[in-house]
Amino acid sequence: MRIDSLKPSSQKEYGLPLSKAELQDIRSLLTRKGRNRRREFLAEGVRLLEEALRHHYRPMALYFSAGHLNERAQKLVDAYRRARVEVREIPARQLEAIADTKTPQGVVGHFAVPEATLEELYRAETRRVLLCENIGDPGNLGTLIRSALAFDMHLVITMGASAELLSPKVIRSSAGAVFGIATVHATWNEVVKLNRTFGTVLVASDLSAHEPLERLRFVAKEKGVMLAVGSEAAGLSEQVLAGADLRMRIGHSRAVESLNAAVAGSMLMRELYQESQP
Amino acid sequence: MRIDSLKPSSQKEYGLPLSKAELQDIRSLLTRKGRNRRREFLAEGVRLLEEALRHHYRPMALYFSAGHLNERAQKLVDAYRRARVEVREIPARQLEAIADTKTPQGVVGHFAVPEATLEELYRAETRRVLLCENIGDPGNLGTLIRSALAFDMHLVITMGASAELLSPKVIRSSAGAVFGIATVHATWNEVVKLNRTFGTVLVASDLSAHEPLERLRFVAKEKGVMLAVGSEAAGLSEQVLAGADLRMRIGHSRAVESLNAAVAGSMLMRELYQESQP
Repeated sequence: MRIDSLKPSSQKEYGLPLSKAELQDIRSLLTRKGRNRRREFLAEGVRLLEEALRHHYRPMALYFSAGHLNERAQKLVDAYRRARVEVREIPARQLEAIADTKTPQGVVGHFAVPEATLEELYRAETRRVLLCENIGDPGNLGTLIRSALAFDMHLVITMGASAELLSPKVIRSSAGAVFGIATVHATWNEVVKLNRTFGTVLVASDLSAHEPLERLRFVAKEKGVMLAVGSEAAGLSEQVLAGADLRMRIGHSRAVESLNAAVAGSMLMRELYQESQP
Repeated sequence: MRIDSLKPSSQKEYGLPLSKAELQDIRSLLTRKGRNRRREFLAEGVRLLEEALRHHYRPMALYFSAGHLNERAQKLVDAYRRARVEVREIPARQLEAIADTKTPQGVVGHFAVPEATLEELYRAETRRVLLCENIGDPGNLGTLIRSALAFDMHLVITMGASAELLSPKVIRSSAGAVFGIATVHATWNEVVKLNRTFGTVLVASDLSAHEPLERLRFVAKEKGVMLAVGSEAAGLSEQVLAGADLRMRIGHSRAVESLNAAVAGSMLMRELYQESQP
């Protein structure tokens, strides 16, 4: 950052500045600690905020800086206004201060973390769930959430040392899919209890398994299916593997040890999706 | 980096130091400019260098620092010695200076960029090629190369504004698969000329296409197949779409606009792989 940019901008500024306290609170959301403490998060950029709008995922407020907006961004701001979201024009340098990327495109959404628990989210009609164990890479977790939405999954659960569900990198990698599908962090005990209650079939992705993936299509449809994918380094933990009703592998050549976790998980989901198509 | 670490390490150091000029040359490979000028690259860490060894992708030299090595790394160094690679023990602080990551695990390989052209790499018996157009994200490109090796592709071509094939991030995301499959950067004109010569079927991944992916299985096997995947932002360019013999889409719900490029490309490759299995 050039020293200049710390000084008040020389260009004329519009909008009511955020107060020092407001700015500090919002800026704290750029860190995981701050997000956890306030149970709020930010999402920025036209494309992500279009997705939030499309999925009716309402922010507490939308901040924008008029000087940054192109036509598409201006339309977005108008649409948020029409949706009765609190829309606030702020000075350019404040917008830059609450943005995570270098080119925030002039719009930042301020959201509350949805506080629903796994028990509340899982219902009798929930059929297809993705369980992510120790998916620590935010890019992989975001990509999995994007594929989960693309392949009609109903819920994404993270477990263990998975990346934070609503971190900026996960939101970006999901291409906004986090706004279109329910996500929740849970413990293995909660998952086990739930699967017992609903008779959910737990399917584990396991390199040493012998069942080829295509068998997924024959899994009984009356019950829900939960697909479990593990970390690239270690795969699924022993407890999840031991708790699985089915272990399946994605056939590939022996030239590689394994597939990327997001690729493997996406293939499992696609298989289930294809089975559900008429 | 703490100031301390710039001073000679207080721990006893073994190994013959690299000369100042050698160190400078090797360090220049940490930048794209340096790699392009010298046509050399580095790969570090036990796992990646195990993959290089397994695929007989010989480095010009292997540098290690004894103090950093665990048992697995020590075994690796011994294996490289047995393979008659020049193995050089260097002081810890020099190893850290030529490493790209904070925890280089004590081993860095120094490789020459393979200079084969597309024309040299493509042979009459080449059957399955992945064409990556404008895959700018190194994580996506690395993941695609990993899947290409997993699904028995014979060659990966990058085109346009794709990420640099042998950058540290691509090598890491590929989990070392770059050492197991031929990769080359080429122009569209070169690709077109080649496909004409060999009668290769060009298959484009295209959201607006109507052919479902499963049709790939019925593409004539006598000819080679080239699968083209484009950038997430823009998809494939008009010229590639216009040049395609087949355009196929991966069916998914309308809740997302598109899949991650590495996921989509991997699914295309898996489909082709399944078709080739007995």
